[in-house]
Amino acid sequence: MNAEIIAVGSELLLGQIANTNAQFISEQLALLGVNVYFHTVCGDNEGRLLEAVRHAESRADLLIFTGGLGPTRDDLTKETVAHALNRQLITDQQAMDSILDFFQKTGRVMTENNKKQALVIENSTVLPNRHGMAPGMIAEENGRLYLLMPGVPSEMKPMFLDFARGYLTRRNNEHIQSRVLRFFGIGESMLETKLLDLIDAQSNPTIAPLAKESEVTLRLTAKHPQKEMAIQMLDQAEEKIKIRVGSYLYGYNEESLPEVVFRLLTAKKQTIAFAESLTGGMAADWLTAFPGASAVLKGGIVCYTNEVKAAVLGVPEPILNEEGAVSASCAQQMARLVREKCGTSIGVSFTGVAGPDKSEGKEVGTVFIGISDKQQTKSFRFSFSGTRSKIRIQSAKTGYDLVRRQLSDLPLHVKD
Amino acid sequence: MNAEIIAVGSELLLGQIANTNAQFISEQLALLGVNVYFHTVCGDNEGRLLEAVRHAESRADLLIFTGGLGPTRDDLTKETVAHALNRQLITDQQAMDSILDFFQKTGRVMTENNKKQALVIENSTVLPNRHGMAPGMIAEENGRLYLLMPGVPSEMKPMFLDFARGYLTRRNNEHIQSRVLRFFGIGESMLETKLLDLIDAQSNPTIAPLAKESEVTLRLTAKHPQKEMAIQMLDQAEEKIKIRVGSYLYGYNEESLPEVVFRLLTAKKQTIAFAESLTGGMAADWLTAFPGASAVLKGGIVCYTNEVKAAVLGVPEPILNEEGAVSASCAQQMARLVREKCGTSIGVSFTGVAGPDKSEGKEVGTVFIGISDKQQTKSFRFSFSGTRSKIRIQSAKTGYDLVRRQLSDLPLHVKD
Repeated sequence: MNAEIIAVGSELLLGQIANTNAQFISEQLALLGVNVYFHTVCGDNEGRLLEAVRHAESRADLLIFTGGLGPTRDDLTKETVAHALNRQLITDQQAMDSILDFFQKTGRVMTENNKKQALVIENSTVLPNRHGMAPGMIAEENGRLYLLMPGVPSEMKPMFLDFARGYLTRRNNEHIQSRVLRFFGIGESMLETKLLDLIDAQSNPTIAPLAKESEVTLRLTAKHPQKEMAIQMLDQAEEKIKIRVGSYLYGYNEESLPEVVFRLLTAKKQTIAFAESLTGGMAADWLTAFPGASAVLKGGIVCYTNEVKAAVLGVPEPILNEEGAVSASCAQQMARLVREKCGTSIGVSFTGVAGPDKSEGKEVGTVFIGISDKQQTKSFRFSFSGTRSKIRIQSAKTGYDLVRRQLSDLPLHVKD
Repeated sequence: MNAEIIAVGSELLLGQIANTNAQFISEQLALLGVNVYFHTVCGDNEGRLLEAVRHAESRADLLIFTGGLGPTRDDLTKETVAHALNRQLITDQQAMDSILDFFQKTGRVMTENNKKQALVIENSTVLPNRHGMAPGMIAEENGRLYLLMPGVPSEMKPMFLDFARGYLTRRNNEHIQSRVLRFFGIGESMLETKLLDLIDAQSNPTIAPLAKESEVTLRLTAKHPQKEMAIQMLDQAEEKIKIRVGSYLYGYNEESLPEVVFRLLTAKKQTIAFAESLTGGMAADWLTAFPGASAVLKGGIVCYTNEVKAAVLGVPEPILNEEGAVSASCAQQMARLVREKCGTSIGVSFTGVAGPDKSEGKEVGTVFIGISDKQQTKSFRFSFSGTRSKIRIQSAKTGYDLVRRQLSDLPLHVKD
């Protein structure tokens, strides 16, 4: 199956946003064994979109559209595809109900143009939109598939994963099995060096490293006519990798470090609280993202100024005045105090210099992370680099990795 | 002048990277008044690339290529364009010198294939690459321009800004001026309905709505031979829009709501603290992102459980037990208490049901936001919809919008 991805939206041609939808869909199609030969971006213009559809039909048998399904006049993807297929647009009652429901729930007044969102191409399979109003759809004609999805990534991605992917898999018989191993605390080049002979020797499964956002991933991809065999090939490759760098491996596929820590805390019936200076609430926020977070996260204190560190958290003034807020003692006090105040089994603290300027004479990137439980309170010093945002994120992730190591009985601090 | 941007590289079609080059170039071309009607992405395949060139020639008079200028076999952009133009590739001595120089300086051994990078299309203008080895080039044929640049963004961007932009400006006389107006608290369809006559009547400037992440933007775009006149046309259109929906307008272009609130707090010398239940630290985190945040953000309390609401923040037990944590009284207490504890001029609180399950018998999406200053403490009830993540983000943004309205002397709560 050969696919072409057509993104519709003048905002793309004006450079206001990048076409990240095409990246996501391409990545997903690669996993399904579908070839992508072209991406096309075209504006909110019926004539030019129709031209793009005709051209794509000449070279692809799966046409995937993103964008142009909304309520306004410049949204015209389904109108144009319906025209190309010589079909009508009809109202989908389920979509209409969920639009009416949305306006009723939120108490907003529904304007007439919203009804346009419930129109779908006749004889198409409607794909529900759980995160917005405009449904997606798949139409078939002469063995060619036309998949239409919204342009908002937070609506398009779940629609693809929950509905479109299954539809495509059923039409496709090659088994490509992929697994992403996620590492924290080890650099890409170090990981590659430790696994070089494995990476070079393997062609099935392939092993591909990728660094992003202070983490490294390895994507293992195996091909086999039988799914079970492909999975077994991945298991074997993973075992070999684990022997060498297993303690850095925190999770799989789309799992995040906070998700893994959330699961560990839940499984071990532990509770946690954060005292956050430079991370400013980020660490607590990450855990709050999970349903049921209240079973493990009790709360936290954002102590961005020394005033709040002393008055709300109770860090002794001599520590702040003599050793400074960016110090091992302060990090330890913060971790211990937030644990006691919130009544949790674990307390984690973050204090450091996010930049762009030095603070207390300490270099940008100097960060102390404290971790405290009933047995002991420790802190570790780190020197991170990069932008303010990168230093803050790296700090929060490192705090999570310390908790992961603690709960998994791994050594807390590892240097390569 | 109509442009088409053709990105060459199989890594794009595999979804390993997003086509951010097209975004950058489109943004730059918009500033130059060049229309972009299509983006195309095509793999490292000569036949398909040639097809893309031929097709682009049929609809554009400026073809911009990124990628495929490197030393390896799968780099074939200039070979293909030379073929399309029926021209030869010749060695550019300056490029060759800088390649040799690079290897001498770095002490690396030059492999033979690197010489390929010094080949350029005959009779083209060579664009130096100050950040890499492969030069760019511009060829003209039948009034059509072919601009070839490297795919690595850190090489392409300076090449465009330092060399290609000047070349294009000299051939182009129109000025396009764009401005994005950013709104919060009003839906896309409602905004369009209120401005429908303006949107329909205007062709220069054009007014285009776009919804994303619980916000709506309007993009105004004016064309005029003189830049100052284009700006004046935007000013006039903005004034008309402000009369109708001005109180929802919070910022311009890439500004975010937290950024606007950070600026307002700084300008008015106000300080803020957050008491966060369902947002779990997100609101404080957003403000911490800005350098100098400590001048306005003192801290906050993440009170995810009732225990912490009572013990750390001091919300009276009867409120929690009788009215519940998700109540107007609790929101008001939280906002007032966090302001007092952290010693700030403003306190903002968030409490609600993020889902996926009901809580205290209250529906998912029920959120109370409190805001407190020395004069008074208020709270507002909202019914948000969508995923847990969407409800949490919408809550935090709404809290920021309340602060923006308070600091701008606008009515705090508006219903459409």
